[in-house]
Amino acid sequence: MVRRLMQTFPHPLIRLLPRHDRRVKAGHPWTFSNEIAMTPAARALPPGSPVRLEGDDGVSHGTWLFNPHSLIAARRLDRDPAAAVDLAWVRGRLATALALRERLYDTPYYRLIHAEADGMPGLVIDRYGDALALQANTAGMEALTPLLVEALTELLSPRLIIARNDASVRTLEGLAEETKVLLGEGGSVLAEEGGLRFSADLLGGQKTGWFFDQRENRDRVAKLAAGGTMLDAFCHTGGFGLRAAAAGATQVTLLDRSAHALELAYETAKANGLGERIIGRRAEALEELERLGNAGTRFDLVVADPPAFAKQRKDQPNALRAYAKLARMAATLVAPGGFLFIASCSHHVAPSEFAESVIWGLGRARRDAKLLFQGGAGPDHPIHPQLPESAYLKGMLFQLT
Amino acid sequence: MVRRLMQTFPHPLIRLLPRHDRRVKAGHPWTFSNEIAMTPAARALPPGSPVRLEGDDGVSHGTWLFNPHSLIAARRLDRDPAAAVDLAWVRGRLATALALRERLYDTPYYRLIHAEADGMPGLVIDRYGDALALQANTAGMEALTPLLVEALTELLSPRLIIARNDASVRTLEGLAEETKVLLGEGGSVLAEEGGLRFSADLLGGQKTGWFFDQRENRDRVAKLAAGGTMLDAFCHTGGFGLRAAAAGATQVTLLDRSAHALELAYETAKANGLGERIIGRRAEALEELERLGNAGTRFDLVVADPPAFAKQRKDQPNALRAYAKLARMAATLVAPGGFLFIASCSHHVAPSEFAESVIWGLGRARRDAKLLFQGGAGPDHPIHPQLPESAYLKGMLFQLT
Repeated sequence: MVRRLMQTFPHPLIRLLPRHDRRVKAGHPWTFSNEIAMTPAARALPPGSPVRLEGDDGVSHGTWLFNPHSLIAARRLDRDPAAAVDLAWVRGRLATALALRERLYDTPYYRLIHAEADGMPGLVIDRYGDALALQANTAGMEALTPLLVEALTELLSPRLIIARNDASVRTLEGLAEETKVLLGEGGSVLAEEGGLRFSADLLGGQKTGWFFDQRENRDRVAKLAAGGTMLDAFCHTGGFGLRAAAAGATQVTLLDRSAHALELAYETAKANGLGERIIGRRAEALEELERLGNAGTRFDLVVADPPAFAKQRKDQPNALRAYAKLARMAATLVAPGGFLFIASCSHHVAPSEFAESVIWGLGRARRDAKLLFQGGAGPDHPIHPQLPESAYLKGMLFQLT
Repeated sequence: MVRRLMQTFPHPLIRLLPRHDRRVKAGHPWTFSNEIAMTPAARALPPGSPVRLEGDDGVSHGTWLFNPHSLIAARRLDRDPAAAVDLAWVRGRLATALALRERLYDTPYYRLIHAEADGMPGLVIDRYGDALALQANTAGMEALTPLLVEALTELLSPRLIIARNDASVRTLEGLAEETKVLLGEGGSVLAEEGGLRFSADLLGGQKTGWFFDQRENRDRVAKLAAGGTMLDAFCHTGGFGLRAAAAGATQVTLLDRSAHALELAYETAKANGLGERIIGRRAEALEELERLGNAGTRFDLVVADPPAFAKQRKDQPNALRAYAKLARMAATLVAPGGFLFIASCSHHVAPSEFAESVIWGLGRARRDAKLLFQGGAGPDHPIHPQLPESAYLKGMLFQLT
């Protein structure tokens, strides 16, 4: 059982060290452990406790969630230092986020909470209709989980809530990695998009969840797919490829190393009457791209949406070379006048760095290109203005001549 | 009468100076006058002549348009050094660009040619149904204009083609600034968008053309407008405001310094049955924003889309301060939970610089924000990958809490 959030009123007071309030005053939602006066009392607070944060000058910076054992020691929760972090507060934050998504989307399939930007630091909630997948990546959100389940139940009456607490960042907060059911039974969910229903398994041993972040990019790509052939490299469960098939692509090649993901994609294709236009190819995508290129195969539309090449900061130089190589190989496969969508979900690669690598790769392929779109995740993944680095997804859509 | 393009076959040969071919080899579409072997024969070529460009090593770089009197001395036209720059060639480029737009848009209102990215360096063509507005910003495109008119007539049978050759960049190519009718009569055109018809006058003394580049951003903003009030600052002919009104905004305040622009906006509103929900306010926008802020007025949606604050590189520091101030004042006017769209069309302000200024301004207004979208012009304004600086339009959409 998840521990309830401990709180007393007023919240315990934590002070910033002298001359360490500049970033907080500018609206940044984090403070680091070396910026805080770590008194014995502060150190003794249970990880995830709500605290009042003040500057050395006595200026109040509101209510924060505090973890004395984490490098990011405090995360802002509310500008009100007297905010009671109770069921009503949690429901309020969720309702605000829900109202935004209901304005943006006609169907209940989206990221409902995107951490700091939604005023819920370290928390991610994805909504699959009446099923919810929750990731609590901080001790504070771990402690708030029972209240979150209660508030979500009041707002949405879900049949299923799953905690996908398997992100490695949890270890930085002293939390275990685990996936478990918080409410209801099972782990199978559906994601509806563009008139298609995609299966996802939130509990399965192999991760085959659904990526809401590319929804708008799948819309863009599908619009260009009618009447042509398509290659979906690193297809996972086939989001791009099946949207393209549904939009009228004549033949779609799905390429992935995972037999399980390809199987799910093929089931989705059959269930949506698209089975005959789908070809599955199980292979290492980079090797297969090279083989196809050498064989002279060409497609009217190529999507290359690989897993993160840079899992850590130190991987970044290699990742940039890998993106350039991927762009070169993928561009080679695009027929004259065809389209290329290429993406990176590496946190440690900036949009400008990714763009430079991709453009270098296109040059190496000797392909002239029109950049039609460059952007990130959809508006259900809002960015906190002070955390531009949280805009991890970068996509570029080109027409090649 | 516009002079016909002079060409002989094979095209005259122009050589790059030793060790000045790196950028061209990487695919850049320009070479500068100090990179070219300016022989007497080269200097004597008529501005805008097609030439073959070769490196000092004899490697061919294709067919370029050459102007010995311009800093950007040559612009790549075709990778084929033997490309005949004739009616068939022009029609081919136009047809490729047209096919892309026809895939992207259901109605014939868009930028048809966006210069280098569409393989037509220095040329811009906007399409308003059966009317076309053409800007030739290089001597080469000036010389190609008769062929362009011929090819456009074959492809689109337009009733009107207007040359809006009034951009100051033309002086860099030794060209006069002028606006004139190339085909047909009159200058009144309609732009259809989101079910509305906007009037524009392409010949009028006061410029009241239509900006296609914000179409996708108007779509995004209109989606958030239903049921609330809206302020459209720097509204010009009311694109954002009228789209919002049509999408269900209860009351829209249009703010601009130009009586003529406001008049056109109001006529459009009446013609579309939206007159009762529109309030026009003629004022200097920055001053009026301050007044409204001091008066405590709030709107559910605020759009601030000013003319370029940085017309020249040296204006850039002042422009950044002005964008920060604009963001602060505009954010102050947004009701809690409301939305702000703010844009810059300054060529001399980079996306990251604009974002920093805006975010700084939001901090000054003490408003927490979710960044929902950040991006540029629509896909009918493609970017040449080697000219990222041509992505002049930058927009940011926030929800403020």
